[in-house]
Amino acid sequence: MKLKIKQNILMEHLNYAIKGISNKNLIPILNCIKFELTNEGLYLMSTDNDIAIKTFIDKKNIENIDTLGDVVVSGKYIYDIIRKLPNTFINIEEVDDSRLYIYTDNSSFYLNCNLVSDFPALDLQDHKNPVIISQKLLKTIYSQTSFATSTQETRPILTGINFKIFNNIMECTATDSYRLAKKIVNINQTMEEEINVTIPTKNLGELVKMCTSEEDMIEMHIFNNKIIFKFNNIIMLSSLINGTYPDTSKLIPETFNINIKTNLNDLFAAIDRASLLTNENEKNTIHFESRGDEAIISSNIPEIGNVEEKIYVNKEENDDIRISFSSKYMMDAIKTLDSTDVTLHFNSEITPIIIKSPENDNLIQLILPIKTY
Amino acid sequence: MKLKIKQNILMEHLNYAIKGISNKNLIPILNCIKFELTNEGLYLMSTDNDIAIKTFIDKKNIENIDTLGDVVVSGKYIYDIIRKLPNTFINIEEVDDSRLYIYTDNSSFYLNCNLVSDFPALDLQDHKNPVIISQKLLKTIYSQTSFATSTQETRPILTGINFKIFNNIMECTATDSYRLAKKIVNINQTMEEEINVTIPTKNLGELVKMCTSEEDMIEMHIFNNKIIFKFNNIIMLSSLINGTYPDTSKLIPETFNINIKTNLNDLFAAIDRASLLTNENEKNTIHFESRGDEAIISSNIPEIGNVEEKIYVNKEENDDIRISFSSKYMMDAIKTLDSTDVTLHFNSEITPIIIKSPENDNLIQLILPIKTY
Repeated sequence: MKLKIKQNILMEHLNYAIKGISNKNLIPILNCIKFELTNEGLYLMSTDNDIAIKTFIDKKNIENIDTLGDVVVSGKYIYDIIRKLPNTFINIEEVDDSRLYIYTDNSSFYLNCNLVSDFPALDLQDHKNPVIISQKLLKTIYSQTSFATSTQETRPILTGINFKIFNNIMECTATDSYRLAKKIVNINQTMEEEINVTIPTKNLGELVKMCTSEEDMIEMHIFNNKIIFKFNNIIMLSSLINGTYPDTSKLIPETFNINIKTNLNDLFAAIDRASLLTNENEKNTIHFESRGDEAIISSNIPEIGNVEEKIYVNKEENDDIRISFSSKYMMDAIKTLDSTDVTLHFNSEITPIIIKSPENDNLIQLILPIKTY
Repeated sequence: MKLKIKQNILMEHLNYAIKGISNKNLIPILNCIKFELTNEGLYLMSTDNDIAIKTFIDKKNIENIDTLGDVVVSGKYIYDIIRKLPNTFINIEEVDDSRLYIYTDNSSFYLNCNLVSDFPALDLQDHKNPVIISQKLLKTIYSQTSFATSTQETRPILTGINFKIFNNIMECTATDSYRLAKKIVNINQTMEEEINVTIPTKNLGELVKMCTSEEDMIEMHIFNNKIIFKFNNIIMLSSLINGTYPDTSKLIPETFNINIKTNLNDLFAAIDRASLLTNENEKNTIHFESRGDEAIISSNIPEIGNVEEKIYVNKEENDDIRISFSSKYMMDAIKTLDSTDVTLHFNSEITPIIIKSPENDNLIQLILPIKTY
């Protein structure tokens, strides 16, 4: 393998490939990036067996392709070396003794290579019928649901985001069993067989970091045990989480006894201040009480002091509600809404609270109340 | 105590006062801020027994002074509460049962107070003859020397920056015994008695964060066991470190066998890249070898690979030098120089390396070489 390439072009793609490498990996080959120089251009590949990334630099963006071939080198080292080289042309050449020679006018590096045959084979074939959405939408889904996933490994299925696709509807759900976030989107295609898969949230996190051209589309090739994302010149494979995702459809009530509408920023700021006098080991519990067109948000730590916040609300029902919940969970939920106002929906002080934007029903945030008596 | 004050004004001063509080303090009163409302204005005080801070808000910046008095409250809570309130007028009032009532139209907080009599008395009297320099100069001294202080508590004296003042010369020195940074400055006054004190580097770090009006001056009131800094409306007291600072004057050679001048950015970038193939547990050792008008910087990790960097140098002597040193220490030293070129001065491969700007002799960086044979 021998080529000459501009630093910034190679760096852009190393930035993608490095995401396929876990720092914690004890198997040396899984810390490597595979370079594959073909007549079409240069492929970079990496995998930690849970995700895999393959990115492609077209030959028109390569100054000079001299000798085709494959090499496998330490991802961390090649990444740092290219990153610290100036933005000039860099020569990369496989030399005797399976070493990679990386040089510019004043810098020369030799890196020991690993055996190409040790690098895992990646099966990145297309599915015949991929789901196609915009990168922007995928990022929105991630930011509006991912925070609600569980970080506990005791129920692995809850550490992912569930994607349920049927006809032209895609439902994306995350829950840690104390709260739930559900985003419903329309897709521009019809899936006749229902798809129901759960993608590890951390892998989606790596994916959305790579989605830098929001207007472009991303293809989701969904298989039984893996999902392959294709976008721009990048392919990312992620494992799926085994197991059946809990049926959350019955958790969200159809009707509510009390519906409150208020200014989103005012509510957020009031809860944020009330949360100052809460304890994390008491779940940051705060109290919410509606009184006609006002609501009082309060909390206290006996040794320290107490707080009362007042906000103005719009409520059509005569009944009032008194309920307690985690200030952190409520703020996480409110943050995902992109509207001036927010609506809170209650049935009783012991049933789930629903948080929505008054403008659309496509995003539903649910949090469980906390019993304080 | 009862007053009304604009949020942003109180916040600015709480930002200073909070720096006098250590999060690790187990004595509750040392986590507190004392408010003292007088006819002149409001004083805020805090101390962790190692440093103390007193800041003053003139009455002209206070909307309403109603009742004079003192209160002592948890620093963390009052800081967070004021920080999260909107930028409007805030009422602060001591109420029955020694509680502090903090309120705006929609927010009301009650904080339990501590006993005023438990708060340590702070002796912040002036020295008759303070040393006066600009805040900008103090920040420069800090940034050019602090990194060379030791972080090891085994020799406490080396965890501070030594200030030696005599006549109109102030010498500021930091060393961890492997490297040394010395800044020599002229002051606009004459001290007839030599001053020699060592100030804890971490306290100077807190101080320089508060020096936001660089053009203004700072007064250094130096006593036997403490130093008091006065600037703008702020007073900060710091302990001094007991013990005699090592005499470093003989460490810095007067003459050199080899003097090399080169471009600062080129040298830094070459060392930065060479350091990629070093190990922290081998002190990030790199090798430097001059060959006429070039120098080669190299390093290697046998399992990974090796690197050679070439830079162009200016050297009047015929002799060449081959020496090894810590890339990290060399980069730390180079970073402090504010010039296009840098000069490196050598006597032999086992004697200290001096790093300077060719334009001035007021800043001397020294690092010890590493024996590699």
